[in-house]
Amino acid sequence: MNLSDLLSVARGDSPADLVLRNGRIVNVFSGTIEATDLAIASGRIAGLGTGYRGKQEIDLHGAYVAPGLIDAHVHIESSLCTPPYFATALIAHGVTTAIADPHEIANVAGVAGIRYMTDAARALPLRILMMAPSCVPATHMETNGATLTAADLAALLADGTVHGLAEVMNFPGVIHGDPAVLAKLAAFAGRPRDGHAPAMRDKRLNAYVAAGIGSEHECTTVAEAAEKLARGLYIFIREATNAHNLHALLPLVTAHNSRRICFCTDDRIPSDLLDQGSIDYMVREAIGFGLDPITALRMATLNPAEWFGLHDRGAIAPGRLADLVIVDDLQDFRPRQLYVGGQLLVDRGALLPATWALSPIDASHVSRSINVDWESVAFAIPARGQRMRVIGALENQLVTEARLLDVTAHNGNAVADPARDLLKMAVIDRYRASGAMGLGFIQGIGLQRGAMAGTVAHDHHNLVVIGADDVSMMTAAHTVGAMGGGLAIVEGEHVVATLSLPVAGLMSDRPIHAVRQAYDMLLANARAQGSPLHDPFMAMSFMALEVIPSLKLTDKGLVDVDKFEIVDLFV
Amino acid sequence: MNLSDLLSVARGDSPADLVLRNGRIVNVFSGTIEATDLAIASGRIAGLGTGYRGKQEIDLHGAYVAPGLIDAHVHIESSLCTPPYFATALIAHGVTTAIADPHEIANVAGVAGIRYMTDAARALPLRILMMAPSCVPATHMETNGATLTAADLAALLADGTVHGLAEVMNFPGVIHGDPAVLAKLAAFAGRPRDGHAPAMRDKRLNAYVAAGIGSEHECTTVAEAAEKLARGLYIFIREATNAHNLHALLPLVTAHNSRRICFCTDDRIPSDLLDQGSIDYMVREAIGFGLDPITALRMATLNPAEWFGLHDRGAIAPGRLADLVIVDDLQDFRPRQLYVGGQLLVDRGALLPATWALSPIDASHVSRSINVDWESVAFAIPARGQRMRVIGALENQLVTEARLLDVTAHNGNAVADPARDLLKMAVIDRYRASGAMGLGFIQGIGLQRGAMAGTVAHDHHNLVVIGADDVSMMTAAHTVGAMGGGLAIVEGEHVVATLSLPVAGLMSDRPIHAVRQAYDMLLANARAQGSPLHDPFMAMSFMALEVIPSLKLTDKGLVDVDKFEIVDLFV
Repeated sequence: MNLSDLLSVARGDSPADLVLRNGRIVNVFSGTIEATDLAIASGRIAGLGTGYRGKQEIDLHGAYVAPGLIDAHVHIESSLCTPPYFATALIAHGVTTAIADPHEIANVAGVAGIRYMTDAARALPLRILMMAPSCVPATHMETNGATLTAADLAALLADGTVHGLAEVMNFPGVIHGDPAVLAKLAAFAGRPRDGHAPAMRDKRLNAYVAAGIGSEHECTTVAEAAEKLARGLYIFIREATNAHNLHALLPLVTAHNSRRICFCTDDRIPSDLLDQGSIDYMVREAIGFGLDPITALRMATLNPAEWFGLHDRGAIAPGRLADLVIVDDLQDFRPRQLYVGGQLLVDRGALLPATWALSPIDASHVSRSINVDWESVAFAIPARGQRMRVIGALENQLVTEARLLDVTAHNGNAVADPARDLLKMAVIDRYRASGAMGLGFIQGIGLQRGAMAGTVAHDHHNLVVIGADDVSMMTAAHTVGAMGGGLAIVEGEHVVATLSLPVAGLMSDRPIHAVRQAYDMLLANARAQGSPLHDPFMAMSFMALEVIPSLKLTDKGLVDVDKFEIVDLFV
Repeated sequence: MNLSDLLSVARGDSPADLVLRNGRIVNVFSGTIEATDLAIASGRIAGLGTGYRGKQEIDLHGAYVAPGLIDAHVHIESSLCTPPYFATALIAHGVTTAIADPHEIANVAGVAGIRYMTDAARALPLRILMMAPSCVPATHMETNGATLTAADLAALLADGTVHGLAEVMNFPGVIHGDPAVLAKLAAFAGRPRDGHAPAMRDKRLNAYVAAGIGSEHECTTVAEAAEKLARGLYIFIREATNAHNLHALLPLVTAHNSRRICFCTDDRIPSDLLDQGSIDYMVREAIGFGLDPITALRMATLNPAEWFGLHDRGAIAPGRLADLVIVDDLQDFRPRQLYVGGQLLVDRGALLPATWALSPIDASHVSRSINVDWESVAFAIPARGQRMRVIGALENQLVTEARLLDVTAHNGNAVADPARDLLKMAVIDRYRASGAMGLGFIQGIGLQRGAMAGTVAHDHHNLVVIGADDVSMMTAAHTVGAMGGGLAIVEGEHVVATLSLPVAGLMSDRPIHAVRQAYDMLLANARAQGSPLHDPFMAMSFMALEVIPSLKLTDKGLVDVDKFEIVDLFV
């Protein structure tokens, strides 16, 4: 942008590229609606007020104009789509900036993964800012694809790849002053440093904040969020596919504290993004709950812009990016039109034929991420005892129960027993062909026959298999391996449904609508094979996450999360 | 500070340096009062909550604890004191951070002047952040002591001397895209860039904001301030000695917009600082006006901290600086105690014997700033006509009238005529001994006899003399010259009262109470010699400021500000 040209338009000396006439501008600074015109030039807002001439002029007939929405924290990988197709969904829903934590691909492919995401995000109208994944790997009790040190992250900051430090999940490391963790915090001094500290209170919270963490998106109750806000953390209210905090936290918001509150989606699968939406959905729900619309919109615009230091957006004001959402009804915030940088991208609520490059980004360095020693893969478990530790999965929860159950034995082996909802689970190192594999049992998934497998398994994303028999498990594992990563459901040697995720074993290379259809097929077949869960694939993806209680399985074995150590299957 | 040690205190594992028990903490994040304890270590807040142990423990018995106040914009030079003595006044009034624009000394001594201020501010408990003076010199129609280019300012930013760009007074240059001005703005991209745009509205305001200016402290009406706030400017409400905007602007503040509003003092003379106070006075007045006390305190703490990106202060929260004001009554905000970095500096409302170094700072490079060609100084004005242009000074206003009056002639010269309130005025180059001198006449100062002179004359700070006769004028000029700068009032050859300002001709090297006494003597004598003005020295200091309408006098002659050109005395 040539500033001199923009000033000429602002003064009224040169015509604007576009004048939007008769809008009702949502002014997030004053908290008022301004009925006036808007002049746009070089992708920026030149001025508000009457008397501007434009090369193009459009009469809004009193429609509302809001700043483009901002998602304060999202893992793009959870959409199972690459950034360009993820972007199509957000743009259609009025989101123009997303603060992304490429934590998943970083665990698979390290710096190369982050650079792939940056490259894939570069030419998009959705403005994606990458944060540096702070905890790769999550723990030493797993094999993952990469390790990121403070020096690695500092290099990413220095070359402009990342904007700040993403959720610091290693909160024990922060609180106890682990030098490696403090080095990461120090590398991002003066930059936004996001938090992740579920249920943390009192003195531990004081220490977490004193260390320099500035935001939190893991609150589940008003009391928890109010304490964290009072200690100085920005609160990101989250409404994810697998974590619904919005309605629980909306009562937190007051006229006095709303400036410190933002919205984020964290993790959303394609059907939620397409059917409900993104931050626009949260704004609608918040207004429906009773929040003043301008307050709700501030939480989706100015507040995150301030926390992230993005003073070029988050408001409709001279010099800021012309990222604008047009809606007809402020009480029912449904984007009818969307401008990004002054370009119309959405009309009548639908994405215009893509005006941006969806040409394939080179993903070769993050493909072929499956490297399994198939010779060593065998699922038989000799019964070394009568009682064993079993993972108890709970619907819609990431925490599990650690159950002690009788072994079902067959030919000297401990076996799955669908009649008891007892399935076998395996987690296979997919990075180093080391032959490392954890084996165990799980209740709560509910398959009565066949098996499911996937390479989406937080945070290490190894190959996870859950099944009712070893043949099905082997079919599922090989099916996913042959796709270069993905999700599959099988029955015996028959492959029932698949979703190929060739990009790092995490993301499809197809449009989000296609991904959604394939995913729906997976879910429908899991249901047909007996699972009562809303989303057993989502559930499976958290059964190997050894930082969330109580019992989890990694490629290194069963992890007692409370003791933070590997334990034997048999007791 | 060792972060690891702070975390240990925060966790409760090590004792704090100090625990303040039973305080009522003003929480500017939540907008609530929290009754709890406060643990302090290494000059920072370690944690809030009960159960902390301290090497020292003090019971506050329910007194209120607020964050240290922040002055968002001040010219220290206007206190006529050096930073250490200026600091004593602010600290006593609860101000712990001041954002200072060393504009005056920069006009006298350029980068050396700014470095003197930085050196003098370094060891003080008042945390002074310097902004880079943006407009030195103010115009080409004056001689001043230095020129600061964009490159000069960028160097000051690069070496950490300055925090941002101070008030950009050359608003025509901004609006019209003057390359030299845009270069200064570009040098401070991503940093706070303060504004100065009196009465600017509509399209010109759009352009000013689009250029990247982010704040404004020159508003005089609610309508003006509301428009500027809506365009995205932070509004600094000002209550200066010579500009009283507080009560006019308090009705601006709403629950929706208060986050964008701060307080500043801009220019305050010693008596105002000592008698009324500083930002504490504005907080008291705002609460008295009816503002919620926490809102008023936010405007004095969190809001300026956010605008200036000072995330280590502005709130009472873990990790932030332990800058704390203790008051007994939130409705009548009078600091009883003050802690800076956890050190008690004020008790029972009075400064404790200075615990910080008031040892003299080396001011040699900003002393001896008076360089006048005394041989060429002569005040006779041959009468070249019958009518002349006369400056019409108006009480408490910086603007003047341009009057056309008859000459009073004597022996062929145009002379002062106190009976008509017609005084002679001279502005003498004090930097280059060039002999440059402007001569003219002024009404409104009111001296009936004698003369006054001073080296405080915005923005160039040349030697200004106003008098009823040439002998008195010569005495006054030489008196000020002999002091190395200062203020004087004389009668004939008798020196009546003086205030020596050896530091750049702008600041005394004596304590603020002494400066105040000397200044009071100047005023009393000016009154005794006939001036009806509250402060004729303050008035005089703006009569040579050629950027404020309508008629002013510089060393280059009479300036018609509206035409922005030098004009002849006679018409």
